[in-house]
Amino acid sequence: MSSSKFARYLPILDWGRRYDRAALGSDLLAAVIVTIMLIPQSLAYALLAGLPPEAGLYASILPILLYAIFGTSRTLAVGPVAIVSLMTAAAIGKIATQGSADYASAALTLALLSGGILLIMGVFRLGFLVNFLSHPVISGFITASGILIAASQLKNILGIPATGHTLIETLISLARHLGAVNLWTLAIGASTTAFLFWVRKGLKPLLRGWGLSPAVADGIAKAGPVLAVVATTLLVWALGLEARGVSVVGALPQSLPPLTLPGLSLDLMRQLLMPALLISVIGFVGSISVAQTLAVRRRQRVDADQELIGLGIANLGAAFTGGFPVTGGFARSVVNYDAGAQTPAAGAYTAVGLGIAALMLTPLIHYLPNATLAATIIVAVLGLVDLNILKTAWCYSRADFAAVAVTMAATLLIGVEAGVSAGVLLSILLHLQKTSHPHVAEVGLVPGTQHFRNILRHKVETDPSVLTLRVDESLYFANARFLEDYISNRVAEDTPLRHVILMCSAVNEVDLSAVESLEAINTRLSELGVKLHLSEVKGPVMDRLKRGHLLTCLTGQVFLSQYDAYRSVVAQGAAAAE
Amino acid sequence: MSSSKFARYLPILDWGRRYDRAALGSDLLAAVIVTIMLIPQSLAYALLAGLPPEAGLYASILPILLYAIFGTSRTLAVGPVAIVSLMTAAAIGKIATQGSADYASAALTLALLSGGILLIMGVFRLGFLVNFLSHPVISGFITASGILIAASQLKNILGIPATGHTLIETLISLARHLGAVNLWTLAIGASTTAFLFWVRKGLKPLLRGWGLSPAVADGIAKAGPVLAVVATTLLVWALGLEARGVSVVGALPQSLPPLTLPGLSLDLMRQLLMPALLISVIGFVGSISVAQTLAVRRRQRVDADQELIGLGIANLGAAFTGGFPVTGGFARSVVNYDAGAQTPAAGAYTAVGLGIAALMLTPLIHYLPNATLAATIIVAVLGLVDLNILKTAWCYSRADFAAVAVTMAATLLIGVEAGVSAGVLLSILLHLQKTSHPHVAEVGLVPGTQHFRNILRHKVETDPSVLTLRVDESLYFANARFLEDYISNRVAEDTPLRHVILMCSAVNEVDLSAVESLEAINTRLSELGVKLHLSEVKGPVMDRLKRGHLLTCLTGQVFLSQYDAYRSVVAQGAAAAE
Repeated sequence: MSSSKFARYLPILDWGRRYDRAALGSDLLAAVIVTIMLIPQSLAYALLAGLPPEAGLYASILPILLYAIFGTSRTLAVGPVAIVSLMTAAAIGKIATQGSADYASAALTLALLSGGILLIMGVFRLGFLVNFLSHPVISGFITASGILIAASQLKNILGIPATGHTLIETLISLARHLGAVNLWTLAIGASTTAFLFWVRKGLKPLLRGWGLSPAVADGIAKAGPVLAVVATTLLVWALGLEARGVSVVGALPQSLPPLTLPGLSLDLMRQLLMPALLISVIGFVGSISVAQTLAVRRRQRVDADQELIGLGIANLGAAFTGGFPVTGGFARSVVNYDAGAQTPAAGAYTAVGLGIAALMLTPLIHYLPNATLAATIIVAVLGLVDLNILKTAWCYSRADFAAVAVTMAATLLIGVEAGVSAGVLLSILLHLQKTSHPHVAEVGLVPGTQHFRNILRHKVETDPSVLTLRVDESLYFANARFLEDYISNRVAEDTPLRHVILMCSAVNEVDLSAVESLEAINTRLSELGVKLHLSEVKGPVMDRLKRGHLLTCLTGQVFLSQYDAYRSVVAQGAAAAE
Repeated sequence: MSSSKFARYLPILDWGRRYDRAALGSDLLAAVIVTIMLIPQSLAYALLAGLPPEAGLYASILPILLYAIFGTSRTLAVGPVAIVSLMTAAAIGKIATQGSADYASAALTLALLSGGILLIMGVFRLGFLVNFLSHPVISGFITASGILIAASQLKNILGIPATGHTLIETLISLARHLGAVNLWTLAIGASTTAFLFWVRKGLKPLLRGWGLSPAVADGIAKAGPVLAVVATTLLVWALGLEARGVSVVGALPQSLPPLTLPGLSLDLMRQLLMPALLISVIGFVGSISVAQTLAVRRRQRVDADQELIGLGIANLGAAFTGGFPVTGGFARSVVNYDAGAQTPAAGAYTAVGLGIAALMLTPLIHYLPNATLAATIIVAVLGLVDLNILKTAWCYSRADFAAVAVTMAATLLIGVEAGVSAGVLLSILLHLQKTSHPHVAEVGLVPGTQHFRNILRHKVETDPSVLTLRVDESLYFANARFLEDYISNRVAEDTPLRHVILMCSAVNEVDLSAVESLEAINTRLSELGVKLHLSEVKGPVMDRLKRGHLLTCLTGQVFLSQYDAYRSVVAQGAAAAE
């Protein structure tokens, strides 16, 4: 492997070489801010994934370090994120009981599979596969997931048990247990939620009004969740609320991430393969779009295939150190960027910070109420819910609306995996359906010009012996027969017709099926004494056609421009008539 | 329903009204010829499907009559065909034993499901779905099926039992039983096969050499199979070969098609649904292409959706009269056409002829050896085998070759259903992969013209502050992110850049994902002080863009032509520099 190839797989060699004191200062400051933000967030997402809180910290330590070595984004912050945590809970919830050793072990297996899939996609440059998640599908999925996540956390706000993978199951389960609401828990949960919403919407303007600078106001607003954590923890401890039924985080092991071995049974891997694929793809899509948005602002580059490798290795790290699937998070990456992180070293320092937290701070977290964590999750994910996408898509096109609506409905009513799969399949089918019925315009010469336009929209000149068709689509198997039908039916009763010209300016590809259809059209037309011509065939398409038989058996000619074609065949007709 | 709509669903109202004595004469003659050809063929295909011989006759009577009423082709001949019979055997062979009552009942269910699927596709105008069977997939499938069918009939030529759904299974099973070859059977089978090949290749030139007219020579050559049937039947009867182990058709019921009820258990229907779908689609593709080829020669029209309805009803007819799945056959339709059939009434007369055969001629068929039927099948299907398609596809493109090769390999090694499914999925994936990496050309002005061409292929004029990109593909979700990446990476280190122009002459569609990507590109570029412009946007695409936000937030302009765009932004740059 040449050294440049080596550098491609190890971006740290590039930025590490130029690392200096200025970058160190910026990175350290960013790391402190991100660490403080990540502690409650990591615990909360572990709760959402159905895992013990410390798993959230563990999932943020080695993965961040590994991403710093293998990732290409300078500012992406990797760790547990809300949607991936929800998908983890949905995938494992089907095969193990929350809190069991099997459950934790399956989470490791899921991270292992997800890491393996990302790594393979990166090495074989299969990153383009994620493009099949269209924007409407992603938007619909994120919105529906946000609603699902918020619903799933209501039980922690109310202090009741509730289960369910779909929205309806969750709501029914909540309703059944409503009688058992713990009022202390509800008081903490509801007031924390209200406080965090107020911090988000009302605090910053207020602080600005008091004359604070935007940066300071922003910093204080971002510290809101930490404030809530400290305040409610002290409250529970001071009032002894654990004894009154307020569920708390409890005793956590005081240690660095342990070395863990994921469950490796073939049966388990088979059951988790599809969820792992969806988690990888969904996680990667979110991560790469944050990474790219931040990179462009500083004219930096992100390599999608290397990102797959970086995230893949980060997930493998999570699998062997007591974590669960991770990816690049939006909120934390923006905080990292805004705090001035210059290089992935900021991530490494964050990992060190979290390691210290796992070793030293865990006893302090004992009385942190789960209701507070639930409140931070609810406030965070409701920011993801964007029902406007339904209206935007409806206005834009019915196909895009269908993709959003089906994805949302399937996610809410059936589950996260069904939602993503249904959305992807539907958008591919709708696209294929569209390209299988291409727009075909019968065109004529705009008088006084060399332009040809649709005879239905423009006053144009035509000749009864010539039919010119402009096909606005690449010709491939899905529409090859459409064209055959169209031309067969069009010429069936048109007796004066002598020439058919296909204008190919919008044809970007002609595959073997389409070539054979064109040959069939050519043969059928020649049986009727009609010649087939082509015009404005693009270079790459022409190169391809030269490899087949069409050009040797074509009854007509291939013209460079439609104008040449029209003039030439009309002149032939005139000569024949004389 | 208006009368014209009514006529759409009943094409017989159209041609029936104008039926006259001349058409009657032509149709009757064609019917006699087709009837003689169909008797051995129907028996043979029933054998191939693993059904009693009379099922072949039954499958040719009511279905032909129904197609005559509901079909739109004037000359298509409907009945059992080789590939559909093979697929029937493959589908039912998995769930019942040949010769059992369950087997025959499952064949009826398969015809019922297949008819229902075709009918639904026709009524809901879903005919375009069959377009996803690309030509390479169809060619590969037909060739592989021909080989499978020929292999499956070797047991009848050798007079040994053998089973197997894949080529390898069949060959191994044949090899195991080779010791039990019946020499009388082999003698009849091998000589009939050789005779039929000679009739096909050598007889016609010979007859022409003797001075016979082409039509007479052709007619005698086509009568070859009937001759073989008569000769071998007489031989078996005269020499008493049945007692020497030559397997014969045996006693057939002497009756018109019975009224039968398909098996209707939900479990059976679930197992047969997928095979029925594939049989419907494969059968329809073959049928419509024959119908269309013959129709165009006489400037007639075939309506694909009504064809689905006609074939669907024909299959329902087969389901209730002791048949199995049917479709339009290539060979018999061509014979019907060549014999001068004018209207679907020729089919009705054929049905009457076959009805008489079923009532009166069945005793004569008792001594017809199965080896003769196997020989007619082998000679017929080897005409379908076309290994050249591998070479043609290889020369044309790797993607088309992959589709052919995978379809053939999966059909031969796994089975007919796996073959079709693998081919369809692979060709869709390869197409999506291709369009997700569109060709993007950086273009410049060809000096002295208003044309813009690829800077890599042509000497063109460019401006360091302007980047013009021509994307040779519709913009949709699968390539939206590709474009984002491409532009992000392209502009990252290009500091003098001030304008990016997207030239959209080959963009036939822009979906919501692509619009959102364009908005993201626009935002990112504006953060770098670069404006985004569009040029040569097509009418329908522009209509669509007006429904979204892009045009309101676009930092640049939309230009009618690329030349206008280039001139305008270069002039802006010059003005700014002054």
